[in-house]
Amino acid sequence: MSVSIFDSFLTTTDMIAVFDDAAIVQGMFRFEQALSQAQAEEGLLPQSAARAIAGVCNAQLYDIPALITAGRRAGSLAIPLVKELTRTVALYDQEAASKVHWGSTSQDVIDTAMVLATRDALQLLDDGLHDLTGRLLLLAGEHLATPVLARTLMQPAQVTSFGFKLAGWLAPLVRSRARLRECAERALQLQLGGAVGTLAVMGEQGPAVATRMASALELRVADAAWHTQRDEWVRLGLEVAVLTGSLGKLATDLSLMAQGEIAELAEPFGNGRGGSSAMPHKRNPVSAMIALAAATRTPQHAAALLAAMGQQHERGLGNWQAELAEWPGLFLSAHGALQALDEAFAGLHVDTARMRRNIDALQGLVFAEAAASYLAATIGKSAAHALLEKMTGEALSTGGHLADVLAAAIALDPPLQAAVDLAHLRTLFDPVAATAPAQRLAQEQLRRLRDDINQFPK
Amino acid sequence: MSVSIFDSFLTTTDMIAVFDDAAIVQGMFRFEQALSQAQAEEGLLPQSAARAIAGVCNAQLYDIPALITAGRRAGSLAIPLVKELTRTVALYDQEAASKVHWGSTSQDVIDTAMVLATRDALQLLDDGLHDLTGRLLLLAGEHLATPVLARTLMQPAQVTSFGFKLAGWLAPLVRSRARLRECAERALQLQLGGAVGTLAVMGEQGPAVATRMASALELRVADAAWHTQRDEWVRLGLEVAVLTGSLGKLATDLSLMAQGEIAELAEPFGNGRGGSSAMPHKRNPVSAMIALAAATRTPQHAAALLAAMGQQHERGLGNWQAELAEWPGLFLSAHGALQALDEAFAGLHVDTARMRRNIDALQGLVFAEAAASYLAATIGKSAAHALLEKMTGEALSTGGHLADVLAAAIALDPPLQAAVDLAHLRTLFDPVAATAPAQRLAQEQLRRLRDDINQFPK
Amino acid sequence: MSVSIFDSFLTTTDMIAVFDDAAIVQGMFRFEQALSQAQAEEGLLPQSAARAIAGVCNAQLYDIPALITAGRRAGSLAIPLVKELTRTVALYDQEAASKVHWGSTSQDVIDTAMVLATRDALQLLDDGLHDLTGRLLLLAGEHLATPVLARTLMQPAQVTSFGFKLAGWLAPLVRSRARLRECAERALQLQLGGAVGTLAVMGEQGPAVATRMASALELRVADAAWHTQRDEWVRLGLEVAVLTGSLGKLATDLSLMAQGEIAELAEPFGNGRGGSSAMPHKRNPVSAMIALAAATRTPQHAAALLAAMGQQHERGLGNWQAELAEWPGLFLSAHGALQALDEAFAGLHVDTARMRRNIDALQGLVFAEAAASYLAATIGKSAAHALLEKMTGEALSTGGHLADVLAAAIALDPPLQAAVDLAHLRTLFDPVAATAPAQRLAQEQLRRLRDDINQFPK
Amino acid sequence: MSVSIFDSFLTTTDMIAVFDDAAIVQGMFRFEQALSQAQAEEGLLPQSAARAIAGVCNAQLYDIPALITAGRRAGSLAIPLVKELTRTVALYDQEAASKVHWGSTSQDVIDTAMVLATRDALQLLDDGLHDLTGRLLLLAGEHLATPVLARTLMQPAQVTSFGFKLAGWLAPLVRSRARLRECAERALQLQLGGAVGTLAVMGEQGPAVATRMASALELRVADAAWHTQRDEWVRLGLEVAVLTGSLGKLATDLSLMAQGEIAELAEPFGNGRGGSSAMPHKRNPVSAMIALAAATRTPQHAAALLAAMGQQHERGLGNWQAELAEWPGLFLSAHGALQALDEAFAGLHVDTARMRRNIDALQGLVFAEAAASYLAATIGKSAAHALLEKMTGEALSTGGHLADVLAAAIALDPPLQAAVDLAHLRTLFDPVAATAPAQRLAQEQLRRLRDDINQFPK
Repeated sequence: MSVSIFDSFLTTTDMIAVFDDAAIVQGMFRFEQALSQAQAEEGLLPQSAARAIAGVCNAQLYDIPALITAGRRAGSLAIPLVKELTRTVALYDQEAASKVHWGSTSQDVIDTAMVLATRDALQLLDDGLHDLTGRLLLLAGEHLATPVLARTLMQPAQVTSFGFKLAGWLAPLVRSRARLRECAERALQLQLGGAVGTLAVMGEQGPAVATRMASALELRVADAAWHTQRDEWVRLGLEVAVLTGSLGKLATDLSLMAQGEIAELAEPFGNGRGGSSAMPHKRNPVSAMIALAAATRTPQHAAALLAAMGQQHERGLGNWQAELAEWPGLFLSAHGALQALDEAFAGLHVDTARMRRNIDALQGLVFAEAAASYLAATIGKSAAHALLEKMTGEALSTGGHLADVLAAAIALDPPLQAAVDLAHLRTLFDPVAATAPAQRLAQEQLRRLRDDINQFPK
Repeated sequence: MSVSIFDSFLTTTDMIAVFDDAAIVQGMFRFEQALSQAQAEEGLLPQSAARAIAGVCNAQLYDIPALITAGRRAGSLAIPLVKELTRTVALYDQEAASKVHWGSTSQDVIDTAMVLATRDALQLLDDGLHDLTGRLLLLAGEHLATPVLARTLMQPAQVTSFGFKLAGWLAPLVRSRARLRECAERALQLQLGGAVGTLAVMGEQGPAVATRMASALELRVADAAWHTQRDEWVRLGLEVAVLTGSLGKLATDLSLMAQGEIAELAEPFGNGRGGSSAMPHKRNPVSAMIALAAATRTPQHAAALLAAMGQQHERGLGNWQAELAEWPGLFLSAHGALQALDEAFAGLHVDTARMRRNIDALQGLVFAEAAASYLAATIGKSAAHALLEKMTGEALSTGGHLADVLAAAIALDPPLQAAVDLAHLRTLFDPVAATAPAQRLAQEQLRRLRDDINQFPK
Repeated sequence: MSVSIFDSFLTTTDMIAVFDDAAIVQGMFRFEQALSQAQAEEGLLPQSAARAIAGVCNAQLYDIPALITAGRRAGSLAIPLVKELTRTVALYDQEAASKVHWGSTSQDVIDTAMVLATRDALQLLDDGLHDLTGRLLLLAGEHLATPVLARTLMQPAQVTSFGFKLAGWLAPLVRSRARLRECAERALQLQLGGAVGTLAVMGEQGPAVATRMASALELRVADAAWHTQRDEWVRLGLEVAVLTGSLGKLATDLSLMAQGEIAELAEPFGNGRGGSSAMPHKRNPVSAMIALAAATRTPQHAAALLAAMGQQHERGLGNWQAELAEWPGLFLSAHGALQALDEAFAGLHVDTARMRRNIDALQGLVFAEAAASYLAATIGKSAAHALLEKMTGEALSTGGHLADVLAAAIALDPPLQAAVDLAHLRTLFDPVAATAPAQRLAQEQLRRLRDDINQFPK
Repeated sequence: MSVSIFDSFLTTTDMIAVFDDAAIVQGMFRFEQALSQAQAEEGLLPQSAARAIAGVCNAQLYDIPALITAGRRAGSLAIPLVKELTRTVALYDQEAASKVHWGSTSQDVIDTAMVLATRDALQLLDDGLHDLTGRLLLLAGEHLATPVLARTLMQPAQVTSFGFKLAGWLAPLVRSRARLRECAERALQLQLGGAVGTLAVMGEQGPAVATRMASALELRVADAAWHTQRDEWVRLGLEVAVLTGSLGKLATDLSLMAQGEIAELAEPFGNGRGGSSAMPHKRNPVSAMIALAAATRTPQHAAALLAAMGQQHERGLGNWQAELAEWPGLFLSAHGALQALDEAFAGLHVDTARMRRNIDALQGLVFAEAAASYLAATIGKSAAHALLEKMTGEALSTGGHLADVLAAAIALDPPLQAAVDLAHLRTLFDPVAATAPAQRLAQEQLRRLRDDINQFPK
């Protein structure tokens, strides 16, 4: 079905394919096939029955829109699917038909299908993170000594290193990649509990069937059916939301630095990307746009998972179904944002000259604190502070550079001039020198991040 | 595209069609056609150009998936659409091609297309409310004198009238229908502002073009372009969320009353609806399920609209796009819930005998307060209260009915027996009589609601 | 109790006082007093009893922390309050004590106390809106002809009028004020239903008691007890959220325009407001900060109200209590934002010279479209477009102004020079002239807004 | 300040104390004291200065409401606090005064104070989880063989073991305890970055100061200042939200099982807990109420953290402040819910007889599937199914027990009677025997959970 053109616009075709109707239905068939195969291996049904079932566990054989319509009526997509599967198996093997879905329940098949799709979705995110973190790591290394304004409360504050800023964007993405893998390890579990989670129908062989199925589908065996205990599953969804949050932070900064009046960064441009024929000066940050849209929507999608946790008794009424419907949105947004930012960084225009001019436009005021510290050693803290305060006012009123007005003032005060190393004082106003503390921190941080990245198993 | 099978499962095909890719794209073409027609009428372009444009404003002529892909790159779906439209018009009329989309901007066409789709969506909701409120009104009238337990904090409390309970479900739906119409009146506005909302390109004729377009599309003329002032639009979305909230309240009560152990209500059953072959006693409340899923998801969809309100300057980056993508979900959920509950009430099984048995199972304790009030007139408030407290304890320990243990106690106390009208006392334990206060209120309330319903213009 | 210092930081002392423990408890006592007074007037209890009750309906006589502790245990704050009130009345009048809270229920008293507090909260919002809209209206009138860059997708787009931009901020606030009054009219209702909403205890006199109480408390009489039908109440809360959304939009723009590199606006400064001793160039936009914090939090607070709507049967378990706790946050945020922005606009520094310089820095490119339109009349649309495209490239590469490079190019092309009115062409690059379309729209819009504002009844 | 009486009502005095104004302010002082102490140890200031500062780092010496008022104006609570601290230190030691807060920034002190408070908050949660999981483990062990209805989609489904159900409630709480500890390990980090996160003022000694401070405060040293990279912090908050979600699930089941008509569980009662004098049969589940309120609110509080993640550049404007204000709510709700449920389970009334009666009331229909399976071995699957379908209909229409009507039918069919072991068939209708599969799973699960619980370090 077509839900919304504006959803497609903000995500990727790859992630759409993962949660496509056909993909979910095929996941349901994979469950049914694995179930009968495991039961045959445990002697609960003949191998021939398992083969008969496997032979028709193929989404392309079925009318998916009809399944949805019947599912809405039945209250579960699995009910018509199992019915159609049974009917189809019966064409070939009556006995096998009587064993379709045996000992299982609707939620087993639907949850497991979602787990299988989610594993694919996580692989896309992991690949995307691999690419984007690689680019950021490289760029950070290149820009360790590039001065750029640090800004607090949306006001220019002091000078930092652009490489340090890049390391700041990079670090949470590396953490997200690690945490997503951890959460996946726990949350990608087979769902198999039967009607009320007790595996009652399969008797003592239930756990063995589960173990075989999990092995076949390469999923974890759950400690117990998680029909209505969704905590590990929700944690995984929330972890995706945290990733999108960090991508949104990056996109926020990118969009601010790409503003025409700041223009320190620009997304790649041309070939129909982000331009406007009527306004030739525009470089619309369309990657940032997609990531910001994701970051705007995702907190609510995450909240929906949490809001759906109070699932009643042994199967939820309404909340489980809400969770299923909200789940893909988290991945669609995250991958849309990830791929968009990867595209942006693949061709990012970094205008280091403009970064420098933006610093210079502040007339050296961002170095006032450093100058005051230096002068304090000579004339005492309060005199130094008073002097800088006066000189700052003068720089602002005259439009001069603080280094110049300060040098001029010192020149008029011979004792002070004698005590002060003017050449050294001048270096305190050097933007590149000012990046030193940030560089030190960034180097160490990048070294650790590089190690972390290299340690991710393939 | 196919976003999620679990979305389709919870809504209606009618509402899916309203927000379908093709419907939105056709809405965009309706905008372009109305724009050129209005401009022709204002003499800004030849009538022939308007005709040439109108001739190809048909979504079926275009490759929608390709538009989405190009739109993602461009940062707006309107950019490739306008480009393709221009190219197509140029096949017939070069001059007309140069006037396609003239004086307008991407957001004008997209927002107006959403307004047009939303008008259709609101009609579906209005129709659905007409049906469901009609059923509830009828049922409430029938059950004015039907006693049912009122329950507070999920515990049986006192006896009320089932008709009064139904009036309680009905009233907010009637209010929602009225408020949705009011909000729609304000929010279904043409979007037309040009690049930055000033209609600059069309000069002094801009407002006249807007008036003509609005008239042609039967939309309101906005006080000013609402590119980044989304308050009226968001109000409309929130009003839909309130409707879903009220439907969720109804579904909560329905699901509680349909529990096997309470069984006062049951959704219609059979023909693949809500059953379970393995568990023949089950009557799954699938309509309530759909409405509860809607109510679980909708608060978050509403929050997303509010979270997207901080749209920057003259066009938002990320937030506008997030709003567009979240918008349809509100309507999909609301209509899914509305139609599901309408189906449930079309065949609702009301078990008045079970309602009575559930009252009786409480051994008359729900009438203790009434009995105490009556006895107080004879023996004083504190003696009456003490007596009832004792009798209540006795009823609970013996399993007897409070009316009986009380009568027995009075029989052992000749002076009391002389003072008390035992027959009258017995009537205080009559469930039907106990509905009198609720009936009085319900009759008056239903009269007003019937008037409100009848006053809705077609 | 002290919940969070970071809440206090973001709101106003006035609004804190409205929802203060003592204020809520006093509201509960006002309910009890009005109830007994109305019952006395209806002859349901002696006037002396009503007087005895009224005499001790004073929050200062009670130990509020002890009420909270006991309320937590009882499951309702009203239970210990009524108990303590009864005990206190009994010190003076035993019979009156037996009539305290008679015929009412916990939710009646708590909801009504919230309604009373909310009425005060709405008055604060209305007053704040009166002030802020007054300032914006004045400022908009002053700046009709002030050119400022319009920005789309966070990129400079074209020139608009700052007065028009101000009108854009103003209009939704005027609408909010009107809508809040409308919602209040419907939502500020007495809650009075007794145990299960049927007013059973008071018999046929219930409605008359309600009418008298509502009149005494100056509240609307509800169509029916709204114990678990919260739609009108939630609508009011959502309307507050919409207001905060519009304030957040304003704050977004303000914070962007106040960035050091754009510097078109600055919040008032000095006396400990928004400064930094270490960084003398900083002008932190602290009002915008408070409004943005409100806009970040409010969507979630609104969602909580919607999420709490599914209240079970005749009194909700958990959801009603959640709604009560979330309710004040909406008002605390809105008033904090409103007052902060009012302070900002009371001393807002508008740097019209900087607005002009920011336009100039774009080298006339924002006027390319206008120039192309003019030249099209002479040399045809496509030639004009090609010429401008070339000149735009030249301006960007040389750093020259588009008007200059265009004039130079025309000077080199005698036939073109002959056909073109160079003086007129030059005016197309005049920022003030470019505001004309925006001015026209703004004048009309401000006229209507002024009318709307003047029509608000006191 | 007093924000809302309805917040206090839903939490604990212990958790209120953790986030109390005075506690936060004292945390800020602990930061300042640790900073100067670490700097003294690194030789950046005299030990005497550190001692002078330490001497007045005591919240009780300061006027907290005045700090809040001044902080609102300044845009940060830390600004007036540092100012007042400096002023106070200066009374004793001028030089020390010049070193107060040296090299640090407002966010360093505020974030670290929140970390310190949060550590205390986590301890309360850990203690609460220790208690509640202990109770649940014990109860689960006692009720392994207690049959209770399992319910799916809010309808009775089959029989399970109450011990298994308890294990289902227990397991996510044990997981939450482990995950909270893991998250805390990463998120309880010192914040120390100076003005823009580069520790510039302290030069090369910055990292050493950080290490000393972290050690003194027993916090982790962060890889880099996390001023605007909030991912680890948000993860911790989300983990609390997951806990509340699991508590809400438990409370949902508890409230459903405590309904008067089901009555399998009841919260402890008496001494002002959950009763109603007017309605003596009521046992209001007030613990469930508090937990449900928490679960209703928490998804939104979690969403607010995610929504606040897009913090601009090196210090966020509005979003950081929003995060601070929303943070305590997560803990207040979680601890309120935890303690309420602990109280409920401390005196939980488990009515195993009623559990049995509720099973019996379903006339053996919940065993139909088991009976059909048994009979299939004798008469074939389809005949067995047809027979059970018929008998089920008969049981429903006659009100008889399925075991009886089935036995009667078999008695009328001598060949069948000969083939069937009626005694064995009868055992299939035994509720206790039906718990066997659940018991097997529960025993294994409880064994693992007991191990997990025992392995938590103190």
